[in-house]
Amino acid sequence: MTTAEKNTADRAAADLTITEVRLTPVLISDPPLLNVQGVHQPYTPRLVIEVVTADGVTGVGETYGDTKYLELARPFADLLAGHSIADLNGLAILAAQVGVDEARVDNAVDVGGLRGVQTADKLRLSIISGFEVACLDALGKVYGVPVHELLGGKIRDTVEYSAYLFYRWAEHPGGAGESDTWGEAIDPAGVVEQARRFVDDYGFTSFKLKGGVFPPAEEIAAIKALAEAFPGHPLRLDPNGGWTPETSLKVAEELGGVLEYLEDPTPGTPNMAEVSAGTDVPLATNMCVTTLPEIREAFLKDAVQVVLSDHHYWGGLRATRELAAICRTFGVGLSMHSNTHMGISLAAMTHVAATVPNLDYACDSHYPWQTDDVITARHVFTDGRLTVSDAPGLGVELNRETLARLHQRWLDDDGTMRDRDDAAAMRKAKGHEDWETPALPRW
Amino acid sequence: MTTAEKNTADRAAADLTITEVRLTPVLISDPPLLNVQGVHQPYTPRLVIEVVTADGVTGVGETYGDTKYLELARPFADLLAGHSIADLNGLAILAAQVGVDEARVDNAVDVGGLRGVQTADKLRLSIISGFEVACLDALGKVYGVPVHELLGGKIRDTVEYSAYLFYRWAEHPGGAGESDTWGEAIDPAGVVEQARRFVDDYGFTSFKLKGGVFPPAEEIAAIKALAEAFPGHPLRLDPNGGWTPETSLKVAEELGGVLEYLEDPTPGTPNMAEVSAGTDVPLATNMCVTTLPEIREAFLKDAVQVVLSDHHYWGGLRATRELAAICRTFGVGLSMHSNTHMGISLAAMTHVAATVPNLDYACDSHYPWQTDDVITARHVFTDGRLTVSDAPGLGVELNRETLARLHQRWLDDDGTMRDRDDAAAMRKAKGHEDWETPALPRW
Repeated sequence: MTTAEKNTADRAAADLTITEVRLTPVLISDPPLLNVQGVHQPYTPRLVIEVVTADGVTGVGETYGDTKYLELARPFADLLAGHSIADLNGLAILAAQVGVDEARVDNAVDVGGLRGVQTADKLRLSIISGFEVACLDALGKVYGVPVHELLGGKIRDTVEYSAYLFYRWAEHPGGAGESDTWGEAIDPAGVVEQARRFVDDYGFTSFKLKGGVFPPAEEIAAIKALAEAFPGHPLRLDPNGGWTPETSLKVAEELGGVLEYLEDPTPGTPNMAEVSAGTDVPLATNMCVTTLPEIREAFLKDAVQVVLSDHHYWGGLRATRELAAICRTFGVGLSMHSNTHMGISLAAMTHVAATVPNLDYACDSHYPWQTDDVITARHVFTDGRLTVSDAPGLGVELNRETLARLHQRWLDDDGTMRDRDDAAAMRKAKGHEDWETPALPRW
Repeated sequence: MTTAEKNTADRAAADLTITEVRLTPVLISDPPLLNVQGVHQPYTPRLVIEVVTADGVTGVGETYGDTKYLELARPFADLLAGHSIADLNGLAILAAQVGVDEARVDNAVDVGGLRGVQTADKLRLSIISGFEVACLDALGKVYGVPVHELLGGKIRDTVEYSAYLFYRWAEHPGGAGESDTWGEAIDPAGVVEQARRFVDDYGFTSFKLKGGVFPPAEEIAAIKALAEAFPGHPLRLDPNGGWTPETSLKVAEELGGVLEYLEDPTPGTPNMAEVSAGTDVPLATNMCVTTLPEIREAFLKDAVQVVLSDHHYWGGLRATRELAAICRTFGVGLSMHSNTHMGISLAAMTHVAATVPNLDYACDSHYPWQTDDVITARHVFTDGRLTVSDAPGLGVELNRETLARLHQRWLDDDGTMRDRDDAAAMRKAKGHEDWETPALPRW
């Protein structure tokens, strides 16, 4: 037997069968970041997924942790036991077997309502995604290769991220949750100050401002202030569908010279198509195109020029690569969306981003806002970039002490934080007691 | 060190670096099969690709073997040495560095001209494909897993193929090449007899007739004869763009009740769109949609309802899966095209087909017509199906003796068979001395 043959025999002996799945919901702290729906809660739920093989190899994944995701993840986990971590194409088949309470889907608020219309399939894709990442992490550890190699190999050594700027308060209503040193940002000066700290601390050179919070004129002023403070740097504005097509076109006209793209200015594909027809500013979306069935209409109508991928939305890292292929085919740009997340998801985002040739823009990430993390060594941005890990799997390790502590926070919660509700959080603020999720478009 | 850790350490020690690439052009025998361009030559060129890693693991691939492919494969092979077999995303980047003589591309006849307009990019994709398959085969052997597992796992245990019926002569002009026992098939009775042998020998239940050979009325009669002889069995007809839109619509009307789909009745997307608008018979193509840039127009115009994938065309097995995702997204069906090939390619086709959820039709394969093969154990169709291999890699082994013999045939050739030219082969037949590739549409 040659060495090569012996190695192969050893490898073939690996038992990839999943013998245990651990689901650990956690609550992680979140600053009082404002958006069109309201304000982030002091804590937000995430789900940490662990799959363990018969050989004792553990893979980790992360996805949304709201109750309706947990209710889907638990029966899915039961189905998964006995399957192979390599059976990634089988995940969608398994997920289709898990029933979703449609009534609950329609009524529930979905992460601030910022992901388009909620459907059972979207919930399933987010569950598949978390498990796919866990399986890929385990598979990478078994083969001794990084996740990017399981996706065909990295084509870049670092991945660029953008600074994700938010209007925000200095602290949560009533001083709830954790405190931080960022201070308030509710006007152009505050936004520029926040951006400067992002540059100083992380080296970001590209900026995205979450808009839809204040009347458009104020947000236009904030972008102009950023353009003046950071001349030539790519800028994006995202009001989460807060504007009418008319308002969107006015904003596009005012900011045409400085915006890299305008993100979801107006809700729905027909509105986006109307805006797109009237401006040369590229329109990006993570609201009207969030699943494969939504692509056809949007691309045919040239409603969007950039799709924001998000492996949690689209069903995993391999589905994200398929989305990239679709965008390449139709000459549509690709960027990457982010929601509140921890380091497991950031590792997953970085691995897939490293393999996609047409990831034409710096990726979004909330990560700098998240101080709670269940991994042992936090990711470090240098010059606005993360180095792609070449360690086996995702290249992250669970800190079980932190995981237990954040899970205990979830256990101790009286139920108010376990389902993200930015409008409910808003109502706790003085002067906003009657706040309701605004009908979109608002302005 | 636990067993799992030791296994991982062993695997991590595997050296995936390509240290040697072997390119072996061969000539394989091909029967006198007729098509719109002419007739198959007695022998057709294929290229066998071997990549060898530093650990001595060898992976095999197969692609077109015409001179212009060889001229591209050789410098590509030189570039590949030193790269990792796992760096699959890097293959396209490497291929872009290999120059293609554009003048030669435009003038050369491309496998009977049956693959749409030839471009340098198409040549590159076919080269990438052969090397990607070889790398996947090697990678599967290193990890001890089948190629389908490297594509996310099989979702079916067998893959269905269709009987690929051809009008044909009993022997090549002048008795050239190898003889076989199939006999002549130039009318409905001959086609039905051929189909019956396909059923008896291989169990196929789905039939495709290569048309464009005789006036449409004769081919309509052949399909009707098949429908009568094999009631309820799926039937397809493919004249390779031989008809005008008007003729295509007449054929569609005549055969609407019995055709599963009509394949490339007329050349080019605008013509196909015209036919599509006038019939309910689904239109399939491997001529007007053969690369990603051709998809947009065809899908927007609803010119085709089924795309015939072909991993040689599209750039490999992973690219084929991306094509499948694109088709899913746009509600377009997916089937699989075939050209003259051996068992390495059939193994590759079967692995990828096993992983694609929306492969809605039986795949085409010329394999039953190919008696020369460089693998040790030929694939065996049972009930028209191949069982998906779970052996490491592709699950095929090179027969070096046969490989040497078929390569010697290529070396000994005086140059007339090294580049497929169905029109030149036709001119060797009595009464066809003045044959020229017909301008399409012919009828």
